[in-house]
Amino acid sequence: MASLNTAKVVFLGLGLISGSLALALKRNGWVGKITAWGPRAPSLERGLALGVIDDFDLDLSQAIAGADVLVIGAPPISTGELLATLPRQLQALNATPIITDLASMKGWVIDQMPESYPRFVPGHPIAGSENSGVMAARADLFVGREAILTPDASTDPEAVKWVTAMWESVGSRVTVMSATDHDAALAASSHSPHMLAYALTMALANDPLNPMRHGGGALRDMTRIAASDPVMWRDVALTNKGSLIDALTAVEDQLSVLKALIASGDGEELERYFAICRSVRREHDRVLNPLDPSAGAQLTEDADKGRDLS
Amino acid sequence: MASLNTAKVVFLGLGLISGSLALALKRNGWVGKITAWGPRAPSLERGLALGVIDDFDLDLSQAIAGADVLVIGAPPISTGELLATLPRQLQALNATPIITDLASMKGWVIDQMPESYPRFVPGHPIAGSENSGVMAARADLFVGREAILTPDASTDPEAVKWVTAMWESVGSRVTVMSATDHDAALAASSHSPHMLAYALTMALANDPLNPMRHGGGALRDMTRIAASDPVMWRDVALTNKGSLIDALTAVEDQLSVLKALIASGDGEELERYFAICRSVRREHDRVLNPLDPSAGAQLTEDADKGRDLS
Repeated sequence: MASLNTAKVVFLGLGLISGSLALALKRNGWVGKITAWGPRAPSLERGLALGVIDDFDLDLSQAIAGADVLVIGAPPISTGELLATLPRQLQALNATPIITDLASMKGWVIDQMPESYPRFVPGHPIAGSENSGVMAARADLFVGREAILTPDASTDPEAVKWVTAMWESVGSRVTVMSATDHDAALAASSHSPHMLAYALTMALANDPLNPMRHGGGALRDMTRIAASDPVMWRDVALTNKGSLIDALTAVEDQLSVLKALIASGDGEELERYFAICRSVRREHDRVLNPLDPSAGAQLTEDADKGRDLS
Repeated sequence: MASLNTAKVVFLGLGLISGSLALALKRNGWVGKITAWGPRAPSLERGLALGVIDDFDLDLSQAIAGADVLVIGAPPISTGELLATLPRQLQALNATPIITDLASMKGWVIDQMPESYPRFVPGHPIAGSENSGVMAARADLFVGREAILTPDASTDPEAVKWVTAMWESVGSRVTVMSATDHDAALAASSHSPHMLAYALTMALANDPLNPMRHGGGALRDMTRIAASDPVMWRDVALTNKGSLIDALTAVEDQLSVLKALIASGDGEELERYFAICRSVRREHDRVLNPLDPSAGAQLTEDADKGRDLS
């Protein structure tokens, strides 16, 4: 196979994340051909017009022929459907490209592969947007962000090395962990927060006072991801069910704790609870705001600040 | 009393919101003296050094003497305590300045006044930050944001007009409503979202996988306000209890709906639910992002976009 930046990369599905990766590879010196397959022409034509890809093909067998790397950039369930049939199709072509994917859950995706394919490296870049589609692709989407890979004992170490190098070339830091840990951690850090934003948005939509029109910066941020792609999040909810329900239950338990403190008027304990949250959140400010040079600065400022009227 | 921008304004308590209002008044042509009182010197000295105020006084009676307007910029419970004693102190000075406040709930604050003071105009600017203290004050904090006033039949209309003009001079749009409606709407649009951010942050902090270190943009936004001032939010939780518990219950009910859909694997209904949220959120994008010229743009783009692999 060709060396890193001369490899032929074929994206199966072209949307926000896959399009951003294609753009990022090109901006970072990729000289190999970058093409895409998809079931319908419009988004591929848009990707071509935007310079995200060099070419596309609506025929899957033709698209994957000669590929060094297949990056599956479809919504989760479509990703699973592709993984279920790709090994057989590649066998027919006598080809063994590296395969990686971008789906937000890994256990379910991996389980869709009918047989072992050692050059499949399950992946998940921790980056996204409430906007969707290749029109929203951004070359800097992955800078400073984590990309998680979940290979197992049967995965070809060379393939892992290659996919690691690809993510590092677009500015990500790569973490390797088990698919099980990934799915539990991401259910808590990403999937359950999306469900909270949805639940909050629906509660506000059903309120006769229409409180959303009085929203400020807090509500802007707490509902931003409720505008995320419904198909993508339907798929996440269906395919990471157990971990997601556990993560939601953990948040519900905390809401019950807070409600009880509010109902009993326990100001001392509420202040203590909120202060713990403030310090936990600030400790993670640099991870959560990798591109913001001021992230974490408040920590120092605050330590030296008096409190007004409290 | 002096005309609008020559009035002497005295802030009682100087923090993020009151400091931002002082800065905003100065940036928008205020020539009257802007001073402050507070129980301790450090934040007042900082405000003076930053040019937020022209002067300060640690003695309340001296500070309020000669004021045209008193703006109470203390945390909610301290605001109530000041309102409980101010009318008597002003009577002793034979003075009737306009009084307004900035607290996030209005019913409780109004109830702290022992007698009617017609020139008190309860107010609440819908603006804030997870940072606190006068060091974090910003002159543009109120631009495009709503400022809600909750006068009642006994309030002096001239005082309402004056406070309205003050908020409009710093770029806000003013809405007048009843204190009861305000407290219910804000419980839903602001207070309950803060509790959700706190509950999510505590659930993550208690998770042995430490999922927050894998957070991306979604978690950044869903936990940003968990770094808010613990005293301020303790006070909100204690003083808007009933409405807040109702608003939290409405979100919990929606979480139960979502959990049931996830558990039963009802993909069709999940997608419908998420699509409703997407459109509700996008309809409010201009309200929630008043300074972002691209807010709401995705609506148009999306209508004309095909869907990838869904």
